[in-house]
Amino acid sequence: MRITSISVTPVAVQDPPLLNSEGVHQTHALRSIIKMTADDGSVGWGETYGDDIMLRWLGAVAERLVGIDVLDVHRIEAVVDAELDAGVHEEVAAAPAGAGYPMADAASAKTRAAVLSAFEVPCLDLIGKSLGVPVSALLGGARRDRVDYSAYLFYKWAEHPGRPYAADSWGEVLDAAAMVGEARRMVDEYGFRSLKVKGGVLTPAEEVETVRALRAEFPTLPIRIDPNAAWTVDVAVAVGEALEGDLEYLEDPVAGTAAMAEVARRVKMPLATNMCVTAFEDLPEAVREGAPQVILSDHHFWGGLRRSVQLDTLCHTFGIELSMHSNTHLGISLAAMTHFGAVSRSLAYSCDTHTPWQTEDVLAAETPLRFEGGAVRVPTAPGLGIEVDEDAVARLHQQWRECGVRTRDDVTPMRAVDPTWTGDVPRFTTL
Amino acid sequence: MRITSISVTPVAVQDPPLLNSEGVHQTHALRSIIKMTADDGSVGWGETYGDDIMLRWLGAVAERLVGIDVLDVHRIEAVVDAELDAGVHEEVAAAPAGAGYPMADAASAKTRAAVLSAFEVPCLDLIGKSLGVPVSALLGGARRDRVDYSAYLFYKWAEHPGRPYAADSWGEVLDAAAMVGEARRMVDEYGFRSLKVKGGVLTPAEEVETVRALRAEFPTLPIRIDPNAAWTVDVAVAVGEALEGDLEYLEDPVAGTAAMAEVARRVKMPLATNMCVTAFEDLPEAVREGAPQVILSDHHFWGGLRRSVQLDTLCHTFGIELSMHSNTHLGISLAAMTHFGAVSRSLAYSCDTHTPWQTEDVLAAETPLRFEGGAVRVPTAPGLGIEVDEDAVARLHQQWRECGVRTRDDVTPMRAVDPTWTGDVPRFTTL
Ligand SMILES: [Mg+2]
Ligand SMILES: [Mg+2]
Repeated sequence: MRITSISVTPVAVQDPPLLNSEGVHQTHALRSIIKMTADDGSVGWGETYGDDIMLRWLGAVAERLVGIDVLDVHRIEAVVDAELDAGVHEEVAAAPAGAGYPMADAASAKTRAAVLSAFEVPCLDLIGKSLGVPVSALLGGARRDRVDYSAYLFYKWAEHPGRPYAADSWGEVLDAAAMVGEARRMVDEYGFRSLKVKGGVLTPAEEVETVRALRAEFPTLPIRIDPNAAWTVDVAVAVGEALEGDLEYLEDPVAGTAAMAEVARRVKMPLATNMCVTAFEDLPEAVREGAPQVILSDHHFWGGLRRSVQLDTLCHTFGIELSMHSNTHLGISLAAMTHFGAVSRSLAYSCDTHTPWQTEDVLAAETPLRFEGGAVRVPTAPGLGIEVDEDAVARLHQQWRECGVRTRDDVTPMRAVDPTWTGDVPRFTTL
Repeated sequence: MRITSISVTPVAVQDPPLLNSEGVHQTHALRSIIKMTADDGSVGWGETYGDDIMLRWLGAVAERLVGIDVLDVHRIEAVVDAELDAGVHEEVAAAPAGAGYPMADAASAKTRAAVLSAFEVPCLDLIGKSLGVPVSALLGGARRDRVDYSAYLFYKWAEHPGRPYAADSWGEVLDAAAMVGEARRMVDEYGFRSLKVKGGVLTPAEEVETVRALRAEFPTLPIRIDPNAAWTVDVAVAVGEALEGDLEYLEDPVAGTAAMAEVARRVKMPLATNMCVTAFEDLPEAVREGAPQVILSDHHFWGGLRRSVQLDTLCHTFGIELSMHSNTHLGISLAAMTHFGAVSRSLAYSCDTHTPWQTEDVLAAETPLRFEGGAVRVPTAPGLGIEVDEDAVARLHQQWRECGVRTRDDVTPMRAVDPTWTGDVPRFTTL
């Protein structure tokens, strides 16, 4: 089965003013929707980042994939390498500094893995449809029929400055009590059985207070906190000591594997990352250091679902556990994430999801991809097991045309409110 | 596509009196042929070890696989685990000591990987046939269309004691000059462009002389030597120094990763192994030690072709190179080896093969699996790309019934000639 055409459609979805150590989410989150058609007329879907530079890579590679067998991921990889080699000189110069996701540097293995992944997933969707089996079967077979996700708790503003659209229903969340309220509603509505706090926003002491308040309200739920490297090693250790027994893991409290390893040696809970180990080339240092002990996998930047399975075995081999990272995502990515979650041997924690922060999606209403008891049932229909609503894609593409956002950038909107804001980390040098 | 039946047929093929550090090959080498039938009537083939204990595991597992989808390797893995758990107590007691291949200990991951592999390959053959694509395509796509193999040079006797059947045409090879003759014929007839010496037979000084004689006769061919842990660390270092510049790698000169690493620190060429790193669980120590630097992969004991691809990525990640191990094999295994060789990214050396030491095979004459220029062209027909001659299987099964060999054991036939022989290593403590 060969690829006959690929369209890459940028879309934008409304995104609440969620806070993190870099700043605040923009009014719209960007994604791109990949529609791949095969010579038997069937269609495979994919979803990835939608930043301008990513769109340029995707467009350049997509043209070159026509005629390739959907099974031939090594050939796709070779095309990605060749196209990014060709574009590397001008594009690196043109890339915005700090584009936020690993796609600015064409020469890096991380950019290549992200581009490869964008096309690998629709190929798997097509292969699964052709064989009449779900993607999980193509990855070796589901080990579980539901994948657990975690409630992703953010401090947030009530609405974006300038009120570009109606405020979300979650209101302002800027202290421990409000965060408990957010968690309560999210747990009640979606059944999440694990809580993740996006930290690095309030002072570390206030965030410790938040975790303690959540612990009091939800005595049995695992809790994790992720300040995205906003802390120094000493602050991370102080938080780790303060929350000993309350955290299942401490996620990216500091930047870089060496600093993470130092924290790991001084606190009792495992250290987790989706920042310092984001590609195979980062693993030797992590193995040598013995930390972080948990990697948040993400097929979007690890090179696709098959590479994620390879990561899974590698982690199993070296005693590293897996959790799963979530970027802002729509339903296509959620389905792909769920298929990998179903087959993973090393997955030991609930996965991250941005559900329910995005209220717009590209899935047809009948797609059975819902949260029940904090889990998503692994799709059993062929391929990814989803139906895409092409009208919704067109609508969200129109929104992309109009919204003005072209690159993920959490710093600039925060600077509009606080002109001194830099987004630099570490932000907090004391508790 | 579901499995409807599996037959496991032990076969025996004539094996020349090839010498190694354990002793001498028996009159017959054992293999088992796995025939897997799917619910669409199509047939997939596999080949693995044929020792009695392996046959018992294969038989126990085969019954339990009926009804499983051929894609569901994780389910097959679970059945292997369950069956071997059930059998572990009595079987471990019943297993002959030193059964030679990693199948005596049901509790070990190595035994489980070997049993899993036996069924994984015929599943891939079936999937490939169903999709109309070669197994290499199912493994991500061929990166090359020919896989290079190495001439496997053995010291040997002219014939087995007792002359059970007509002598082979290679004659006695017990010194450097005779080995050069063996190599010359093998290179001329098969086109091999790399030489592997099975050492640990003559004194290390005589084997150094053999390598030097080969180097003189074949100035440009890479040469490796594999004494199967027959040497001490000091002997290995002395050989390594004597052959500096002449060896592409030194394979298993000593036993165990720690000793291999000590040799690696003291010689210039890389160390290679198929003895101390034979399972994923062995990799952490090898990565920590930085040696051996080359792993001879073997899908028969690494858990199959998909696990071999995972090993490939893992090795690429940690800067370990791959070569490929060969046990005595027939054409089904050669096809499977060639498909993996075609897709591997880390493969950096010619693969081992026992061609042309076996003169009997189960492939139909028209199967295009021949050596040209020392390489095998990667099959492009669906699945493994081979046709099995079931009459040949029946004939070699009859030979198995009659030959009396039931377990690979190189020690006993040597002891019949030399009652003091133990096969213990290291055998050589001085050059
Ligand atoms: Mg994170
Ligand atoms: Mg060897």
